[in-house]
Amino acid sequence: MSNYTARQVHLISRPVGMPIQENFKLVEVELAAPQDGEVLVKNHYMSVDPYMRGRMRAEAVYAQPYGLNEVMYGAAVGEVIESADSSLQAGDIVLNGAAWQDKFVAKASAVNKLEPFDPKQISLYLGTLGMPGLTAYVGLTKYGEPKQGETVFVSAASGAVGANVCQIAKLKGCRVIGSVGSDEKAQWLQDECGVDATINYKTCGDLTSALLQAAPDGVDVYFENVGGEHLQAALTAMNPFGRIAACGMIASYNNAEPQPGPNNLMLIVGKKIRINGFIVSDHADMRPQFLEEMVAWIKQGKIKSRETLADGIDNAVDAFLGLFGGKNFGKMIVKL
Amino acid sequence: MSNYTARQVHLISRPVGMPIQENFKLVEVELAAPQDGEVLVKNHYMSVDPYMRGRMRAEAVYAQPYGLNEVMYGAAVGEVIESADSSLQAGDIVLNGAAWQDKFVAKASAVNKLEPFDPKQISLYLGTLGMPGLTAYVGLTKYGEPKQGETVFVSAASGAVGANVCQIAKLKGCRVIGSVGSDEKAQWLQDECGVDATINYKTCGDLTSALLQAAPDGVDVYFENVGGEHLQAALTAMNPFGRIAACGMIASYNNAEPQPGPNNLMLIVGKKIRINGFIVSDHADMRPQFLEEMVAWIKQGKIKSRETLADGIDNAVDAFLGLFGGKNFGKMIVKL
Repeated sequence: MSNYTARQVHLISRPVGMPIQENFKLVEVELAAPQDGEVLVKNHYMSVDPYMRGRMRAEAVYAQPYGLNEVMYGAAVGEVIESADSSLQAGDIVLNGAAWQDKFVAKASAVNKLEPFDPKQISLYLGTLGMPGLTAYVGLTKYGEPKQGETVFVSAASGAVGANVCQIAKLKGCRVIGSVGSDEKAQWLQDECGVDATINYKTCGDLTSALLQAAPDGVDVYFENVGGEHLQAALTAMNPFGRIAACGMIASYNNAEPQPGPNNLMLIVGKKIRINGFIVSDHADMRPQFLEEMVAWIKQGKIKSRETLADGIDNAVDAFLGLFGGKNFGKMIVKL
Repeated sequence: MSNYTARQVHLISRPVGMPIQENFKLVEVELAAPQDGEVLVKNHYMSVDPYMRGRMRAEAVYAQPYGLNEVMYGAAVGEVIESADSSLQAGDIVLNGAAWQDKFVAKASAVNKLEPFDPKQISLYLGTLGMPGLTAYVGLTKYGEPKQGETVFVSAASGAVGANVCQIAKLKGCRVIGSVGSDEKAQWLQDECGVDATINYKTCGDLTSALLQAAPDGVDVYFENVGGEHLQAALTAMNPFGRIAACGMIASYNNAEPQPGPNNLMLIVGKKIRINGFIVSDHADMRPQFLEEMVAWIKQGKIKSRETLADGIDNAVDAFLGLFGGKNFGKMIVKL
């Protein structure tokens, strides 16, 4: 019989506008031993992602909201400590949806055994090889449909999703322009990821002018992570029959009051633009193909990953809040 | 040798905001006789359409702007008066792009001979059987992709495009909600076109609430003719995987200064909405199929058309300006 204590982060009040530490509480709970068919897992890494802000609202659009005074959920990579199911054994590495806690007991069928391509890089399954990487892959290839020689504009370009979009677009033979919030991120995108041009949206002045200058041949594909001014600039710079893969609009996630949108939506008609909103969970069918291509690209050094690691569950909330100030450089991960 | 005088409407200054009479001038010109390969055409009907407002700007997005101190262009149906080409003879009815004038000389190859399904209804080739009808057909079937039992919301629903969208959607087995600017138009849509529910956006109060009430099962397809508040309401009412066919955004055509867009664009992501801007001229390949289906529907009484006729080229500018005040009921046409 196990005798474990788990530490969990609970949502104790719903944020209004930007979340604050007081919306969350670190709670210790005793875990019962795994029953027949269950496993006890110790999480090594957990993910914090912008989408989690949406789950903190009372009404969620495409998924259940987080419950109050309950542990939140999200992606994590852990290791089986005790198993009461024949499909898993102690030492197995598992991808799971039970983040925001350092240990948990669950049905064995609720976790996914990983065969990591490199045991030293299991955190990649939360980023480049996980949901953010698949998001980049699906959004760019299925909805952006970039053709060789076209120009791809990526917002939040050094983020967990954006950096993968940039690099996949380069592999597809495109000219890539990335928008980021610091010169250091811009440098990394250009030096390490082969991005052709970068815009620091915080210092560039008028974003539309900056984009028009960076994209003399116009923009064919816009990968939308931000919304607001970025969308407005992209619409102005886009070529006829341009495609927008709308993955997120982080600029608006923490607005207590809705903010007006771009003033040039009419261009959607005249330029015959296609916009596809999408949620990665609808595209699980593309995961095997994604993993095969992505692992190959990583091994060949064609896809670089950058992570920002926070240390311990005590810092998980801080890591999450940092996403909205652009404190992450690449994928933000909490090492448990 | 002919000795004809043509009356033409010229654009003499570019409108700022809402166009005014003083932006236009009626001009008389002498026509030379048709040379070899040319025809002289007398127009019986000309079209005024919202898209023409875009052509009055100095920079047009998808077509050449109208020149200053030149006759404008647009669709018209006329009759050959003199022919110097073997392909056409006097009395032939021709669809042409030489509106805003009562007579003109052109290459025979620049006009299209019609075989009208009913010689008394040749004006239909400017509306239900013309560009607006094809716009409705392409936008709804190719981009809206309505499925039996789904709910379709149409803005500017009694207009030249909208009324056809409503009726084709009914033929596809959908529940149809139309937004209009008068109770008389609403009544016609319900009584004659079989539309299930209507909203008078001028008197309904909050448009989003009115739409949510009219669409208890949500909106699956939104046919966008208006923009602004209509788009915002549609996004709020839409179901997951909803489709928006973006045909026009008339609410913004006369803004001297760009106006902010909807405040809920983030819903595009969460609801996985697809938006397709489109211009009918890219879809000429669908015209034969469209004409075949549409003529059959008209003959069977399944598609009704309503026209507002203005009398004479002296009233053409008034007719055009009336489009922006909703003065047209169905297709606005000038009888020459």
